[in-house]
Amino acid sequence: MANTNPPDGGGSVRHRVALPPKEGLVKDFKSWGQELFFHDAPLRGFKDQTAAKKVLLGIQAVFPIVGWVREYNLRKLRGDVISGLTIASLCIPQDIGYAKLANLDPKYGLYSSFVPPLVYAGMGSSRDIAIGPVAVVSLLLGTLCRAVIDPVDEPDDYLRLAFTATFFAGIFQAGLGFLRLGFLIDFLSHAAVVGFMGGAAITIALQQLKGFLGIKNFTKKTDIISVMESVFKAARHGWNWQTIVIGASFLTFILVAKFIGKKNKKLFWVPAIAPLISVVVSTFFVFITRADKQGVQIVKHIDQGINPISASQIFFSGKYFKEGIRIGGIAGMVALTEAVAIARTFAAMKDYQIDGNKEMIALGTMNVAGSLTSCYIATGSFSRSAVNYMAGCHTAVSNIVMAIVVAMTLLFITPLFKYTPNAILAAIIISAVLGLIDIDAAVLIWKIDKLDFMACMGAFFGVVFISVEIGLLISVAISFAKILLQVTRPRTAILGKLPGTDVYRNTYQYPEANKIPGFLIIRIDSAIYFSNSNYVRERSLRWLREEEEEAKEVGLPAIKFVILEMSPVTDIDTSGIHSLEELHKSLEKKEIQLILANPGPTVTEKLHASKFAEEIEEKHIFLTVAEAVAACSPKLAEHQA
Amino acid sequence: MANTNPPDGGGSVRHRVALPPKEGLVKDFKSWGQELFFHDAPLRGFKDQTAAKKVLLGIQAVFPIVGWVREYNLRKLRGDVISGLTIASLCIPQDIGYAKLANLDPKYGLYSSFVPPLVYAGMGSSRDIAIGPVAVVSLLLGTLCRAVIDPVDEPDDYLRLAFTATFFAGIFQAGLGFLRLGFLIDFLSHAAVVGFMGGAAITIALQQLKGFLGIKNFTKKTDIISVMESVFKAARHGWNWQTIVIGASFLTFILVAKFIGKKNKKLFWVPAIAPLISVVVSTFFVFITRADKQGVQIVKHIDQGINPISASQIFFSGKYFKEGIRIGGIAGMVALTEAVAIARTFAAMKDYQIDGNKEMIALGTMNVAGSLTSCYIATGSFSRSAVNYMAGCHTAVSNIVMAIVVAMTLLFITPLFKYTPNAILAAIIISAVLGLIDIDAAVLIWKIDKLDFMACMGAFFGVVFISVEIGLLISVAISFAKILLQVTRPRTAILGKLPGTDVYRNTYQYPEANKIPGFLIIRIDSAIYFSNSNYVRERSLRWLREEEEEAKEVGLPAIKFVILEMSPVTDIDTSGIHSLEELHKSLEKKEIQLILANPGPTVTEKLHASKFAEEIEEKHIFLTVAEAVAACSPKLAEHQA
Repeated sequence: MANTNPPDGGGSVRHRVALPPKEGLVKDFKSWGQELFFHDAPLRGFKDQTAAKKVLLGIQAVFPIVGWVREYNLRKLRGDVISGLTIASLCIPQDIGYAKLANLDPKYGLYSSFVPPLVYAGMGSSRDIAIGPVAVVSLLLGTLCRAVIDPVDEPDDYLRLAFTATFFAGIFQAGLGFLRLGFLIDFLSHAAVVGFMGGAAITIALQQLKGFLGIKNFTKKTDIISVMESVFKAARHGWNWQTIVIGASFLTFILVAKFIGKKNKKLFWVPAIAPLISVVVSTFFVFITRADKQGVQIVKHIDQGINPISASQIFFSGKYFKEGIRIGGIAGMVALTEAVAIARTFAAMKDYQIDGNKEMIALGTMNVAGSLTSCYIATGSFSRSAVNYMAGCHTAVSNIVMAIVVAMTLLFITPLFKYTPNAILAAIIISAVLGLIDIDAAVLIWKIDKLDFMACMGAFFGVVFISVEIGLLISVAISFAKILLQVTRPRTAILGKLPGTDVYRNTYQYPEANKIPGFLIIRIDSAIYFSNSNYVRERSLRWLREEEEEAKEVGLPAIKFVILEMSPVTDIDTSGIHSLEELHKSLEKKEIQLILANPGPTVTEKLHASKFAEEIEEKHIFLTVAEAVAACSPKLAEHQA
Repeated sequence: MANTNPPDGGGSVRHRVALPPKEGLVKDFKSWGQELFFHDAPLRGFKDQTAAKKVLLGIQAVFPIVGWVREYNLRKLRGDVISGLTIASLCIPQDIGYAKLANLDPKYGLYSSFVPPLVYAGMGSSRDIAIGPVAVVSLLLGTLCRAVIDPVDEPDDYLRLAFTATFFAGIFQAGLGFLRLGFLIDFLSHAAVVGFMGGAAITIALQQLKGFLGIKNFTKKTDIISVMESVFKAARHGWNWQTIVIGASFLTFILVAKFIGKKNKKLFWVPAIAPLISVVVSTFFVFITRADKQGVQIVKHIDQGINPISASQIFFSGKYFKEGIRIGGIAGMVALTEAVAIARTFAAMKDYQIDGNKEMIALGTMNVAGSLTSCYIATGSFSRSAVNYMAGCHTAVSNIVMAIVVAMTLLFITPLFKYTPNAILAAIIISAVLGLIDIDAAVLIWKIDKLDFMACMGAFFGVVFISVEIGLLISVAISFAKILLQVTRPRTAILGKLPGTDVYRNTYQYPEANKIPGFLIIRIDSAIYFSNSNYVRERSLRWLREEEEEAKEVGLPAIKFVILEMSPVTDIDTSGIHSLEELHKSLEKKEIQLILANPGPTVTEKLHASKFAEEIEEKHIFLTVAEAVAACSPKLAEHQA
């Protein structure tokens, strides 16, 4: 072995630290831009193809349907029809309820399950996602819009604002994808999303108490304290017991169905159709008993007919224009995060690739199209996508089937919903959002990372006790704080030699690793940038001080060499070079030699560009820690002699 | 060597990857908090001391003067008096000019060179910094305050706003230090500061054209286009040639003096007293010739007497209260950045330690005290600190000497400044701010890091072409963008074996390193967090795809093992673990085994907490890449057989 360290410590083979091949500036920027925007090499399929083939591939890139439709067959169709029917039966009652969360008429929920899924089916690359309105985004849109316009006093303007927000949410989503800025959604951490979703689920469930208990005067705030106050105030006037009986019995039915579906995966369709059965049975029951005359609130009237055109209703100027952009931006980002997370999850389960940026273009286009046809923001639904997957969907055709069923419903069946009790919709929503509370994930987060858990809880309590926006703000703020923390305080470690090897490892993790007398070996575990360069220097000096004190106490020889193991230092900027220079000067004054081990390509390049390599002399830059120790040991002996 | 890889590839010694000692939650948080807030171990001196000694050390920690005054001697006093007189002669004319940048009467500049340096001398730990008003902060304060109140129409309220901003700047600075949040200023990157300072210097120099050319109607904007318009408009009415002659000749004199000082370090006092000589000579000249009657603008009148109390003038309510907080926050942060950078630079040159947080408390207290005694924001001046250092200062006593000289000036000499021509002040300011344009630094930044250079130029052009605030905003935004970029797109590298060693290195940097057939060895150069976990997974799969294609072309055996070299992965969060799980699943489907090499302590802990270690089986986690290759080679042979 060439890096063997002979007993006399000298005469070892010395390997050169290579300077990477010199790249031009243009090539530098190109490869940097490629990693940032095109790290998934989206154009690799286009290489070495004929022009005609390239055009076809281009069309296929925008409309994946062109690709898979040619391989479509009857077997796939059967799976897609079954799963499409299943998610349709699940989405119809949910849509009616979710529209209420957005302070909109029930029909807008149904509209949003017709046009967007059709657009997505043509452009989207996920095979399992079920498109339509979802609870959290509906609540968020409702909360944000109500802060601007009162939906009861000015229903027309409110509706126009909702369409405007939907339009800009779509523009925003498609824009992110088109500019290949999709990585921006990675800045919402998993932990924050878990907390936010859990909090939103609780908030939504609490909102359902209105319908579930038959309360007439309900607070417009969403925090738990205001809601509970409303509930207990209403208790004095008596809740409506008929409503409660209906709601509670069907909620029990739906939850039992869910439980059955969980126990036996083959019975996935039981929880999937339970809501629709509840709606049918309870509607029939109310119609027979005319319980609505006993104070049981019902849906009353849903307009018949499919989506009217709404293009002329979008605000393109005036005071609501800006608000629409703002609300669209926020709600669009949350919708995007949810949809992309779903698409990625199922793609990983079936092992196919999702291009996040293309997915965003599809989602954005579908929302723009939706805003022109009376829909509000649609996205991927966790619960319906899971059902879609379990029901055996093969392609986005299941979304088409669902859209057709919803259209049929809009055309022919809506009058039948007249006597559907609101309590049933409340029960359906409660059972649906319970799935968003992911306690297992929270426990795992607690086990893995305490800081992540704080982020999770911050978002959760922010949503539950203050409001959805504040909770979202807290999630984003904590996510960013964590990133900043990471770059400000990189870890450092003291290395020691594992007995019988040439391997140097963290002495904290490997207590058996021996520190080499006269040497201090520090590994810096991060790129050295302006945000941490001072810390790195000061922390290194503190290590030195501590180790010097220890060496003095134990009577070991004084430290004469500080070796910085640079393997993890992937990059360095001007501030970082300054810091190394200052460290070098401070050490020189103490007659200690600074040594660098294994700087990477970028760092080596910059050490030379900045002349720091000359300053500490190239002979003090080694390929490995072992070689550095071997080469310096004879000099150490001289010092001690 | 135990990690030797015998020719048959089997039978090598296998080292265990150690789980670090289990720490309690409290200890975890404690060590984390310590690194974040107390990484410099500020209390280490207090350990093992008697109670009385601890009290003394405590007093000394807040007032370092108590410590060094006991070792003070005549030799040090001589150095401090000389340097104190030198910086006083430099600061008096500068103060008068800088006060104008802040739209304040000249006396406020002098006030700010009296109280703040005295407070700093007692509390500060830098021995070389020269305290007082500086050009950039004066301009920033002036610009921000003028946007709120017109200094000509409402001079009283304007003055009160300036004091209010100074008060809150001080509160803000001391608060950051007290809460040990000093690391926040590290988020302004060196490159952005270089650009911002250069831009501000140009802006300030352009502003001086008013005094230098004797222009009466000058724009209130600071961008270069508005200023040049003003200058050329005024040209039609004729600039004042007498003013120009005076200004130009003394500017030449000062610049020649600077040049002499640069050539011969011993003549440092020549450029230091040149401004004062210019003031004296030109004032005398104007007084004799009564050039002020020819249109040469003069200072006119400066009130006699030292700082009056201004505590009652600070806004603590009303609309200007909030503005004061905002302006104080921005200007205070910039002042802090400048002062801490100066303190650190000179501390490194003389090799003593600066506690950034304690320094901030000193600077903040001094500004609060200043705001109560008619001063505006003071901080460390680059140019005067350098003169102070070269003149041989030993302690902060030089600041005390300077303050006394300024007080004498205020008490007795101010009437003599009556005939000082404004053009001289303009010449002094121009020569002073030219030093802020650091072309060498910009060139070095260009050489080292192109992205940093973009940040530098962004800040520069933002200040010059738009405004100081926008320039500052651009610097901060670019600094943050760089941090975010760093955490979103970590580097990855393909490793190969250096011939004749067991060392695996980046094949891009070391083209001689050999890839091992059947293996793909990827090093991930960053902690894996939510912000990059998707990228890491997708990038790894892309490396695999590319290498598989290459292997197929060349006819090498298919890849059966993907080794992730985890040495640089210092931490992982829940999203990161998810990503590894997904990567593992994707690889399993291709019958490729995922192997981890050398996970660090935190990562090892989390791999176990999340059960992922069990999932990929512990036998697939190795201490080094070499051991992993050695252990897996026999299996690879089976595959190929």
